[in-house]
Amino acid sequence: MLEKIDLNKKLSKEESKQIMEELEGKLAYLQRVCKERKIPVIIIFEGFGASGKGTLINRLIYPLDPRGFDVYAINGESEDERLRPFLWRFWTKTPQKGRIAIFDRSWYRRVLVDRFDGVTKTSQLPDAFNEINAFERQLSDDGNVMIKFFLDITKKEQKKRFERLLENKETAWRVSKGDLKRNKHFDEYKAMNEEMLQKTDTEFAPWTIVEAMDREYAAIKILKVVTGRLEESIAAQKARSDQPKSASSIQDRVMKSSILSNVDLSLSLDKEEYKARKKELQNRLSILHSELYRRRIPVILGFEGWDAGGKGGAIKRLTEALDPRGYQVHPTASPNDIEKSHHYLWRFWQGVPKAGHIAIFDRTWYGRVMVERIEGFAAEEEWKRAYKEINDFESCLVHSGAIVLKFWLQIDKDEQKRRFDERTNTPEKRWKITDEDWRNRAKWDLYEEAVDEMLIRTSTTYAPWIIVEGNNKYYARIKVLETVVKAIEARLKEDS
Amino acid sequence: MLEKIDLNKKLSKEESKQIMEELEGKLAYLQRVCKERKIPVIIIFEGFGASGKGTLINRLIYPLDPRGFDVYAINGESEDERLRPFLWRFWTKTPQKGRIAIFDRSWYRRVLVDRFDGVTKTSQLPDAFNEINAFERQLSDDGNVMIKFFLDITKKEQKKRFERLLENKETAWRVSKGDLKRNKHFDEYKAMNEEMLQKTDTEFAPWTIVEAMDREYAAIKILKVVTGRLEESIAAQKARSDQPKSASSIQDRVMKSSILSNVDLSLSLDKEEYKARKKELQNRLSILHSELYRRRIPVILGFEGWDAGGKGGAIKRLTEALDPRGYQVHPTASPNDIEKSHHYLWRFWQGVPKAGHIAIFDRTWYGRVMVERIEGFAAEEEWKRAYKEINDFESCLVHSGAIVLKFWLQIDKDEQKRRFDERTNTPEKRWKITDEDWRNRAKWDLYEEAVDEMLIRTSTTYAPWIIVEGNNKYYARIKVLETVVKAIEARLKEDS
Repeated sequence: MLEKIDLNKKLSKEESKQIMEELEGKLAYLQRVCKERKIPVIIIFEGFGASGKGTLINRLIYPLDPRGFDVYAINGESEDERLRPFLWRFWTKTPQKGRIAIFDRSWYRRVLVDRFDGVTKTSQLPDAFNEINAFERQLSDDGNVMIKFFLDITKKEQKKRFERLLENKETAWRVSKGDLKRNKHFDEYKAMNEEMLQKTDTEFAPWTIVEAMDREYAAIKILKVVTGRLEESIAAQKARSDQPKSASSIQDRVMKSSILSNVDLSLSLDKEEYKARKKELQNRLSILHSELYRRRIPVILGFEGWDAGGKGGAIKRLTEALDPRGYQVHPTASPNDIEKSHHYLWRFWQGVPKAGHIAIFDRTWYGRVMVERIEGFAAEEEWKRAYKEINDFESCLVHSGAIVLKFWLQIDKDEQKRRFDERTNTPEKRWKITDEDWRNRAKWDLYEEAVDEMLIRTSTTYAPWIIVEGNNKYYARIKVLETVVKAIEARLKEDS
Repeated sequence: MLEKIDLNKKLSKEESKQIMEELEGKLAYLQRVCKERKIPVIIIFEGFGASGKGTLINRLIYPLDPRGFDVYAINGESEDERLRPFLWRFWTKTPQKGRIAIFDRSWYRRVLVDRFDGVTKTSQLPDAFNEINAFERQLSDDGNVMIKFFLDITKKEQKKRFERLLENKETAWRVSKGDLKRNKHFDEYKAMNEEMLQKTDTEFAPWTIVEAMDREYAAIKILKVVTGRLEESIAAQKARSDQPKSASSIQDRVMKSSILSNVDLSLSLDKEEYKARKKELQNRLSILHSELYRRRIPVILGFEGWDAGGKGGAIKRLTEALDPRGYQVHPTASPNDIEKSHHYLWRFWQGVPKAGHIAIFDRTWYGRVMVERIEGFAAEEEWKRAYKEINDFESCLVHSGAIVLKFWLQIDKDEQKRRFDERTNTPEKRWKITDEDWRNRAKWDLYEEAVDEMLIRTSTTYAPWIIVEGNNKYYARIKVLETVVKAIEARLKEDS
């Protein structure tokens, strides 16, 4: 894409001043509209060193209300960040609806500077490109306006700018050794940029190449693109909100496979055997936990299942064997107002564990395709899209080195009734049962259908679903413990 | 306190098993009550190396629902943490109401290991003790149950335990060089612990010394103290909720000093002078901003004032001169539900800037003594306590090296009316005016009284209030810019 660019575009001073003022007024207005309409905006700046990213960001934000945007300067990863999937630090910075996030360098570092420096290995590149495209698509699908600028200058111009900066004591620190090295090997680095632009120039997140030899010209181009994209997005959002929401169609019910109805719920264990195997498995797990820590392998365990299916009990038998400094349990309630104003995966990204730690989710991101689908909190197009989004999310986790297991605790409708009644009749257990549990029970068939579809669409080789026959609690707890122990053992063996 | 401790306490196995089971059942029950009653609990473990903190934390959490607590292991500070006040990493980890936070080592590191290692200088100790006591008092006042354990063993026992750990390849890594050094200089380190215990054993956050030679004995003592403290706190909370809330008294109105009514609102600047001085001050500020970054000085600017007082405009004239990668503007709206379930200062701690960065708060923690006081969101005892809490908070910031300035933008009631009308009548400005603004205006006198009291009680030498005569916007903006510039210049001079 870069070879087509004419880098000598210029504008006269008067021309540019007048155009600029007009664009600034428009941009200030559009920021307010985006705030009112709760449209989140992400603007990223990439490009060669000394191409003027800082200056041009300043020009862009000048007309903006400073209370409505954040600027993030992205450098090398901190230790905390290095221990997580590389997209973690960006997911956690995605804007709330109605706000603007501006990135001075971004996730593209992974396939640019880090690639050039050998921090990203060649074998990691295909995953990195896929994950970046999936990330941007997910955000775009969720209503984020994605605007990406690449600032282009020539090798000669870059050299001149570096020299000018180096002359002055107050600006010399801005030029790093890496900058000079990339100038020296400009063509090699440019080729990496070229490849990046081609692989990530998508319909939902297109690149704009900015001829940055002349800063006035560049500033105007940037404001023009931003105002243009915002206008388009606002118009599109208006058009969408005028249309009636498509009602949930029934045609997909044909795919009902009844995975759940084929589960053998008669499987059980007696108390003696349970106790003996629990002890043995917990001992193994306890040793494996230190080993995971030592080898910096993260583990993510998701628990889903019917209400009263035994999630809490199964989790407890796991954590009993774990060092509390090395795991965290994330109970997932209905999203709070901050969580609601982000992409639904955002809050789960917050809980992604550091390498060497275990994160246990009591209910998970699969709420999107169960409760949100059934209660209509997610539109049909949203939950249908979610299967792929979830697979992409879990694939990110696995690429970062994590073991990902998902448990579905299955019980039948009679067993649930029995447990609900027991809870209602036992004073110490009464807190466990709520009206909502009864309401959900009334929708058993709808849930069964949704769960079946979920299990089919999201059981992957890298992040499998484990269906746990749960009518007998002893059996269920041992199956969970054993699955976790075996998955960790298999992984440790593979790595050593 | 340590010299009175008999370290040879023991219990028989049968005795302890029976007591333990009973305590575990009680603790599981109390955890649920605390969750229901939204009581936050903080439990910290300090003590000599190898005194069994990890093991005893495991014993404590065994009966707990893992979805309701978090364990934090506190080691040296990360880079991100080093660049902020030392309490920052603990404030951000304080539990939501109804949850339990357990600290394996804690903020006491500052006056123990870090003191022993010379990381904390002797001159910093008095501030550290004061800040710790203020921190614990604030949390306790807000309803947190503070439980602090100190695990005590002898020098000889410690040496024996280290040797046992070192014998085994799998446990040897747990003994650090620092551990061995502290064992060698046990008496010196013990004296530091002794001083710490004396200085921080308070009514609201008392220490429990645990004789940790025998782990069964220690585990029982810990569970006894925790269940006892929780029972007390629950009873106290019940008693409080049975009492009617004390109505806001009027007696304090005598202190009305009318600082605000003495402000000279005729001060003004003409447009030409404004433009010239703005340019000059912004240029200076821009250079100072890099210097702040270079010298790693954090700056915190708080803006309060009447609605339509010109906060936004003043902030904009500041940020225009700043590098967006080095500042953040925090707009303060009504607290969201997560913020509401923490101490009111918690959300402002999240926004404390890294050393070298500027944080601008558009409305601040002073909401506690203004809107929360007037609307009754805070009880009288709560907002009265807040003056000291706020002074303590700002003192923490200043001790960490920050410049802290607070601006009150003053306009009179007529000027406010004029601006409200203008906003209502100008389509592009109409978004700025809400019904709430008119409601607040109706309470002008109540606010005036609250603001007067706030200005008197919280203007400190280290974090002064600057009253900005705001009827003329040009004058106000220049005063803000000039004050910031001068404060930074004074500080840079002082330091060099």
